[in-house]
Amino acid sequence: MLVRFDELRGTLERALLRLGVTGERAALSSRLIAEADRDGVHTHGIARFPLFADMITAGHLSATAEPTVTARFGALERWNGNLGPGNLAAHAAMARAMELAAQHGLGGVAMANTAHWQRGGTYGWQAAEAGFAAICWTNTLPNLPPWGATTPALGNNPLVIAIPREGDGGPAPIVLDMAMSQYSYGTLAAYRQRGQALPFAGGFDAAGELTTDAGAIETSRRALPIGLWKGSGLSFALDVLGAMLADGQATYQIPNDFTQEMGLSQVFLAMSPEALRSNEGMRAIASEAIAFLHAAEPIVAGRPARYPGERTLETRAENLAKGVPVPEAPWATTQRLAAGEVRVAPVDRGPLGFAER
Amino acid sequence: MLVRFDELRGTLERALLRLGVTGERAALSSRLIAEADRDGVHTHGIARFPLFADMITAGHLSATAEPTVTARFGALERWNGNLGPGNLAAHAAMARAMELAAQHGLGGVAMANTAHWQRGGTYGWQAAEAGFAAICWTNTLPNLPPWGATTPALGNNPLVIAIPREGDGGPAPIVLDMAMSQYSYGTLAAYRQRGQALPFAGGFDAAGELTTDAGAIETSRRALPIGLWKGSGLSFALDVLGAMLADGQATYQIPNDFTQEMGLSQVFLAMSPEALRSNEGMRAIASEAIAFLHAAEPIVAGRPARYPGERTLETRAENLAKGVPVPEAPWATTQRLAAGEVRVAPVDRGPLGFAER
Repeated sequence: MLVRFDELRGTLERALLRLGVTGERAALSSRLIAEADRDGVHTHGIARFPLFADMITAGHLSATAEPTVTARFGALERWNGNLGPGNLAAHAAMARAMELAAQHGLGGVAMANTAHWQRGGTYGWQAAEAGFAAICWTNTLPNLPPWGATTPALGNNPLVIAIPREGDGGPAPIVLDMAMSQYSYGTLAAYRQRGQALPFAGGFDAAGELTTDAGAIETSRRALPIGLWKGSGLSFALDVLGAMLADGQATYQIPNDFTQEMGLSQVFLAMSPEALRSNEGMRAIASEAIAFLHAAEPIVAGRPARYPGERTLETRAENLAKGVPVPEAPWATTQRLAAGEVRVAPVDRGPLGFAER
Repeated sequence: MLVRFDELRGTLERALLRLGVTGERAALSSRLIAEADRDGVHTHGIARFPLFADMITAGHLSATAEPTVTARFGALERWNGNLGPGNLAAHAAMARAMELAAQHGLGGVAMANTAHWQRGGTYGWQAAEAGFAAICWTNTLPNLPPWGATTPALGNNPLVIAIPREGDGGPAPIVLDMAMSQYSYGTLAAYRQRGQALPFAGGFDAAGELTTDAGAIETSRRALPIGLWKGSGLSFALDVLGAMLADGQATYQIPNDFTQEMGLSQVFLAMSPEALRSNEGMRAIASEAIAFLHAAEPIVAGRPARYPGERTLETRAENLAKGVPVPEAPWATTQRLAAGEVRVAPVDRGPLGFAER
C-alpha cells in the first residue's frame, strides 16, 4: 500500500499523542519513523510501531521519560535513557555528541537503559546532514550464536558509520547501517514466505550444515554472523565496549524476548566538520573514492558496485513522489491508534524506569 | 624454527640499527615486531621485516623520519607520518590518543602519509594494557573487489577494537584485530601449499562461483569481503573516513603494489579508563560477558566459543617458555642484516618524505 509521506507522518504523530508522547517529541518521533519507510528501510519503520505501542501500553517504556546525564568526562558523556522512546533518546544523544565534537573535535555519548533505537541509520543521516562524521552502535538481546556455538549469546548489534558529502542537490552522505548477522530474521521470514532460497548461505540448518533455506535457519535459530568468526568477534567487542562506556547492560543481561528488549546500551561518536576539512576545504575524497568504486569491473554489466547509502536518495525521491510503501497490518494498527479506537493505558513511571502500577 | 624471544628481539634490533633506525626507536620497533611472533601473529611479525628493510634500502621509507602534528582540534589531532617506520608512528599516535583521552575522556589521532603498521593488534594491546579502550584502523592498497565487482577497488582495511580487562595474572584484554577480507592472501597461500580446501568459501573462482579452492582465489584475485556486501561497505566507509580525518590518501590513491604500499591513512581513538568505570570501579562486565559466551552450547563438545584475543595469552606463555616459532627465510635474512652481511644504503629524506638521491 502507498501512503503519502505527510499522511504517514501525521498519522504516526496522532498515534504517538494518544500514547502519551507529547508535542514536539511526537512530531520528531513520527518524522523519524516515517523517514525510515520513506528511505526504504521498511523493517525498521512503521513495521515496528505496534510493538512500540504495546511496550508503552504495557508500561515497559515511558512515553514521557527523557534521557539524563549521569557522568561527564569532557568530550564524552554518560547518559541514562530512562526507558523512554528509543528513537528520541538516540536522536538527543547524537545531537549532544555533535555539540561536544563542535567544541572538542571529537564528541561522544554512551547511553545506558534505553530502548530500541529503531532505524540505526537515522542517527548517521542526522550527523552527516549536519556536516559531522559519526560512528554509533547499539547492543540488542541475544539473537545470534557466537562462532563455534549453536545457541544465541550475541546480539546482532547494528553499527552505523556516516560520512558527510555534498551532492549536486544537497547532502549525499555515505551512511553504512549494518547488523552483525548476514540476514535479519525479518529477511529470512520474507524469503521463506516467498518460497525463495537465500542468494548466499545465511546460517546453519538443524544438521549443522550451511544452508540457503531461510525456514531451516528460522527453525535452528543459527543465523550466520557476517564474516563467520570475524563478525562474531566484532559483535562481542561492540557489546562489551558499549556497556562499559554506558555503565549499562551487556547483551547477556537483556531478556531473549523481543517484547522485552529494553535496557540497551548505545554509543554515539561524532567528529567535527572542521576535522574533516583540509586547508582547501572539505576534500573531494568521498566523491573520488565513489568514482573509483564505480569504476571497478562489475559482475553484471551496467550494474556497478554501490557505496553504503547509495540507493537511499533515489528511493527517497521515488517514495516522496509516488507515495511511501507501507506494510498493511502495522499501518492499519497505527490508523486505529491515531483514531483512538484502540484502548491504550499509558503508565506513569518512577525515576528508576520501573512502571508504577 | 624456534628462537628465544630475547634473541629474536635483539637480532631485529641490530638489523634495525644497521638500517639506520636509531637507539630507543630500534629497541621499540624490534620489540613490537618480536611480540607479533611471540603472540602467534606470524603473518605480521618478522615475516614482513625483509620487505620493510627493502623499502628503507630503496629509499621509499625513512629510517629516521618521525611523525609531526599538522592540525589540532582539541581532543583530536591530525598527524603526518612522514613515511617513517609505520609501527613506530602508529605506536606514537596511539600513545598520544591516550594522552588526549586522559585529558578529554575521548582522544584521537588521524595520521596521513604513514607506512604499514604491521600487526594492528599491537596498538590495541598497547591501549588496553594501559587501561584504555581503543578503536583504530588503517587503510591499505586496493586488494579486494567491492561487492558486485570483479576487480580490486577496496583495501582489506584492518580494524582493531581493544577493551581493558584484568585477569588473574595481569591484563587480559579483549582485542579484536580483523581485516575486511574473509581470508588474507597469506592464508590462501598456506592452504594452497598444503593442498587443503578452505573450511569455508573464501572468494570466487574464475567462473564466478564461490569456492573453497585457495589457489583459484589467488588466480581470480576475487577474495571475499566479510559478510559479502556488508564488509564491502564497512571497508569503504573506514577508508573514506580515515582519509578525510587524516587529510591523507584513500585506497584509490595507493599503488596496487605491495612493495610500494605507503602513504596510508590511519585513525587511533582512545577512551579513558575513567569513562570505563562505574561508581563501583571497573565493572566485571567484560568477564561476565566472556562467561556468557563460554556458556553457549558448543558445536564441538569441550570447545566453547572464544572471545577476540582469547588465545593470545596462552600462545604468548607457550612461546616465551619454548621459544618463538619463526619463518625460516625472514629469520635468515634478518640475521644477515643484523650481522652487516647484506649491503644496505639508508637514504636521507627531505621534509616531504621524498628520497633525496
